[in-house]
Amino acid sequence: MTTAHGNRQVLLRSRSAGIPQASDFEMRTMPVPAPAPGHMLVRNRFVAAEPAMRGWINDETSYWPPVAIGDTMRSFAVGEVVVSHADGFAVGDRVTGMFGWQDYAVVAPDGIDRRLEPDEPDSAALGVLGLNGLTAYFGMLDICRPARGETVLVSSAAGAVGSAAAQIAALHGARVVGIAGSADKRARCIDEFGCAAAIDYRAEDVGEALGRLCPDGIDAYFDNVSGPISDAALRHLRPFARIAVCGTAAITDWNPWPEGPRVERHLLVKRATMRGFLAADFAPRFAEGLEMLRAWVADGRLRYREQVLAGLDRAPESIAMLYRGDNDGKLVIRV
Amino acid sequence: MTTAHGNRQVLLRSRSAGIPQASDFEMRTMPVPAPAPGHMLVRNRFVAAEPAMRGWINDETSYWPPVAIGDTMRSFAVGEVVVSHADGFAVGDRVTGMFGWQDYAVVAPDGIDRRLEPDEPDSAALGVLGLNGLTAYFGMLDICRPARGETVLVSSAAGAVGSAAAQIAALHGARVVGIAGSADKRARCIDEFGCAAAIDYRAEDVGEALGRLCPDGIDAYFDNVSGPISDAALRHLRPFARIAVCGTAAITDWNPWPEGPRVERHLLVKRATMRGFLAADFAPRFAEGLEMLRAWVADGRLRYREQVLAGLDRAPESIAMLYRGDNDGKLVIRV
Repeated sequence: MTTAHGNRQVLLRSRSAGIPQASDFEMRTMPVPAPAPGHMLVRNRFVAAEPAMRGWINDETSYWPPVAIGDTMRSFAVGEVVVSHADGFAVGDRVTGMFGWQDYAVVAPDGIDRRLEPDEPDSAALGVLGLNGLTAYFGMLDICRPARGETVLVSSAAGAVGSAAAQIAALHGARVVGIAGSADKRARCIDEFGCAAAIDYRAEDVGEALGRLCPDGIDAYFDNVSGPISDAALRHLRPFARIAVCGTAAITDWNPWPEGPRVERHLLVKRATMRGFLAADFAPRFAEGLEMLRAWVADGRLRYREQVLAGLDRAPESIAMLYRGDNDGKLVIRV
Repeated sequence: MTTAHGNRQVLLRSRSAGIPQASDFEMRTMPVPAPAPGHMLVRNRFVAAEPAMRGWINDETSYWPPVAIGDTMRSFAVGEVVVSHADGFAVGDRVTGMFGWQDYAVVAPDGIDRRLEPDEPDSAALGVLGLNGLTAYFGMLDICRPARGETVLVSSAAGAVGSAAAQIAALHGARVVGIAGSADKRARCIDEFGCAAAIDYRAEDVGEALGRLCPDGIDAYFDNVSGPISDAALRHLRPFARIAVCGTAAITDWNPWPEGPRVERHLLVKRATMRGFLAADFAPRFAEGLEMLRAWVADGRLRYREQVLAGLDRAPESIAMLYRGDNDGKLVIRV
């Protein structure tokens, strides 16, 4: 190992209203820390860019406390153990956890989410074999619960979570309709991600397209976006529809709190269920989910795309890229 | 029996935007019909007034087709069999079903919801021992699922459904907070309907009151109203909260469709579930529900109020009374 170049860290400098921009971060270089007894030093190989980072940054009530100004940006990462004073972990182990946007992290064993399997690519643990895949797995199978022949709608269906959700629904016999934000992504929903049909919401009237593509209505909706796309989806529910509320990517800002068409009457008339969830709520079943996801990836039934940004210095711009839809698959940063 | 005075019927004459008014109905008197073989003639004793009637009347997509102009108004009723050509039904049987706002109805056996028990008062079958009670029972126990010590919020808690829902939650060990529309109703929530605390939404700031009365948040919300009361409730959810969407009494009109604060972020951050339901969805379990409701009423643990309007000619004004909150308990019409 070499630590001569120090530990570069991407720090949160300011909070924008809305989407965090590159200018909200700054880099500094600190000495590489020495792990205390019981801890290990992990050198990051890949760190992640997630839509959820907006929530981790903004000073709002969320499921995690906001990242403090001056702190290293919170991030999932995959790295290699380069020093270990921790029982059960050896130099060379590949591990994943919340190691942050930095070169090195000192981690205790309880900060390790899991050790990668030998045949597993580094970066998949940040996407389809990480929380993105698990989010899709539990949201689709536990909340949307697609039955054979049902119609399942997925928004952001070319994204890291949506593309897995769409394929998992298709694997369970549902007819899947995807919504994505470009002609290329629309095509990819059909060609790669198991959708029977797809909608380019930037080019099409979503309500009209849903009426045409889901003439009998929508049995389940995996919602990554909120906003006008979801408003249209709710007008096409079938009785006893299930809506998994996974993300709100279409809402730029929750301050002031945005309004939209009231949902109560849709839910009442269609006896529908709308449920928000986090993959973390299913943590006791992660092993089950990962086993299924790995098997589907291994036999080619679960495809994923990722786009790699080269270098930690690209991290600050990554969140805004996601919200512009400029990414092509799961966005990861090679450290 | 006497049929000399004919069969008075309350017909739907017009559809108001919003709440149906007395002027939307007219009465006519027709000959008392003669039941065909296999049918019976029922003389109504009580007919009902329900908030849901607004939905039955308005020309909107709903769970039932709208009542046609010129048709007898659809209504639950309790009556006595006065002529029977139907196997299993005898003159003198008290029965309940959708017999309409009229003196007499010809009914087939499959139009009978149930026969009343000998010790059962006529009118309870239209309220606490009818769909109102069943709505409260299944909405509270299957959707809100109150656990001992949890905080359960009920809107329209002095109403026919809400008062039963509040008591059922309290019977299951929850701390119940009611919302009602007058000082008297507020007091009744506490004195009669099992609430630990209650809010008069016409006199108090509901959001402030919820912060004070539910400092740790709301575990379950039985929602009869939608609108600003529900918007406030959603800002006070606890993680994994359950919301049973039972009615939308605070929304005067769905055309144009009203807007309100978006719910997705509440549901996501709190991992909450919002589910619309109809008692009818639980029809296979009505016997179970009625058995429990009858037992609780019999031993005094489930109280109910009803207000009786004397005479079928009062029926046309009854729906508007409900929406003004002028009723004192379940509103029924003695035929």
